[in-house]
Amino acid sequence: MSSVIDLLKSHRSIRKFTDQAIEPELMEELFKAGQAAATSSFLQGSTVIRVSKPETREELARLAGNQPYVAKAAEFMIFCADLKRAGNYCEAYGKPFEGDFTEHFIIATVDVALMAQSLVTAAESVGLGICYIGGIRNNPGPVSELLQLPKGVYPVFGLCLGYPDQDPEIKPRLPLSVIVKRECYDEEGDKQAIEEYDDRIREYYRTRTGGGHGISWSEQVATLLSEKSRPHMKGFLEDKGFKFR
Amino acid sequence: MSSVIDLLKSHRSIRKFTDQAIEPELMEELFKAGQAAATSSFLQGSTVIRVSKPETREELARLAGNQPYVAKAAEFMIFCADLKRAGNYCEAYGKPFEGDFTEHFIIATVDVALMAQSLVTAAESVGLGICYIGGIRNNPGPVSELLQLPKGVYPVFGLCLGYPDQDPEIKPRLPLSVIVKRECYDEEGDKQAIEEYDDRIREYYRTRTGGGHGISWSEQVATLLSEKSRPHMKGFLEDKGFKFR
Repeated sequence: MSSVIDLLKSHRSIRKFTDQAIEPELMEELFKAGQAAATSSFLQGSTVIRVSKPETREELARLAGNQPYVAKAAEFMIFCADLKRAGNYCEAYGKPFEGDFTEHFIIATVDVALMAQSLVTAAESVGLGICYIGGIRNNPGPVSELLQLPKGVYPVFGLCLGYPDQDPEIKPRLPLSVIVKRECYDEEGDKQAIEEYDDRIREYYRTRTGGGHGISWSEQVATLLSEKSRPHMKGFLEDKGFKFR
Repeated sequence: MSSVIDLLKSHRSIRKFTDQAIEPELMEELFKAGQAAATSSFLQGSTVIRVSKPETREELARLAGNQPYVAKAAEFMIFCADLKRAGNYCEAYGKPFEGDFTEHFIIATVDVALMAQSLVTAAESVGLGICYIGGIRNNPGPVSELLQLPKGVYPVFGLCLGYPDQDPEIKPRLPLSVIVKRECYDEEGDKQAIEEYDDRIREYYRTRTGGGHGISWSEQVATLLSEKSRPHMKGFLEDKGFKFR
């Protein structure tokens, strides 16, 4: 249909990078491509902290749950949802600051994700590989301290960028019939479709790891949702001024 | 640098569409391109409700704050964060369901945004125009009822798709220096850069509307953050099982 569609469909996370640096001019283009993504109410609620210092990178790799590529990738950056930049102007215009509603949290978080995903597509279009690092939310407090993130700003995820030094398979996705519904939410047929998909995923892991880790999709995600996942996030975000009003 | 980067940088929202339909084969490719985006912990926490019935589209246009293109675009879909699909399997594997933490909410919301943005890029690459519709969060309860969204699923935003019948200007973004920081959060120089940007935005609105609406970026976003924005979202989400624990 289009080479861009083929590019998008060929995405896989890269966790091993060559030593090749990314040209400054290219980095600038990637940021501009990301920035051009849609932004809710024109907020532009993203701030990207680009981290180059080796000691900070090492520390972030550790805080993200020991992910060595955070230290080793040509570029690593942390995407932050930022309500401070806009909030700074409330006083200037004689308005009260009320930007701590759940809705504001959604707007800023979605803004960040849209920007990041456009930057990712731009990067992949020139042969770079990427890996999102949700693991920085393991330790959002120390990460925020390290990057001196003020109130009104929180680290949503990290992103590794670099030239790939591996060529992993594309991970199969759920059947479209399960993801895309017509007119209303309807689970008919999903159980059967997911059963077949589970078989594919077991097989995917078997061929990748040589026999050991043949876990299905449904079992993985059931585990995810049976865990008190990062229970510190709520308190951390409230401290940062996201009050979920 | 790459035609994909040029494509991404040329994004603008389209709110007027021709009557031309989108071929079913192309729609399927767009969904697959979206689905190939990264997904946190392999959750795949997105469900897309594709709405075609004219009466439902009219109702959604109304619920989104009277946005006529919601009814008129060739395609309209609602992107939902979905923790139900995965949560269904907790019982099957004998695990407790704990998927109502703030972290789970972030994971699912980010998943949706990444998928949508890849779908958007795919669409724009074949000449389609798009408009995100955050306005559906004006009335998330009625929208959810209309689409029969169960507990564990919430509508994040809508998306209009169609062939453009207008050619709006690209809206200037904040200077890169304001958005991208080195090593840590640092506002030095931002005030001045935003002042200059405010002038550009005033000018952008002046030339677009013929003199009337010369509002700056900082004033717009200060207003956004001085409003108790969609204060119903918290209660709505809690009803839907997102407990922000």
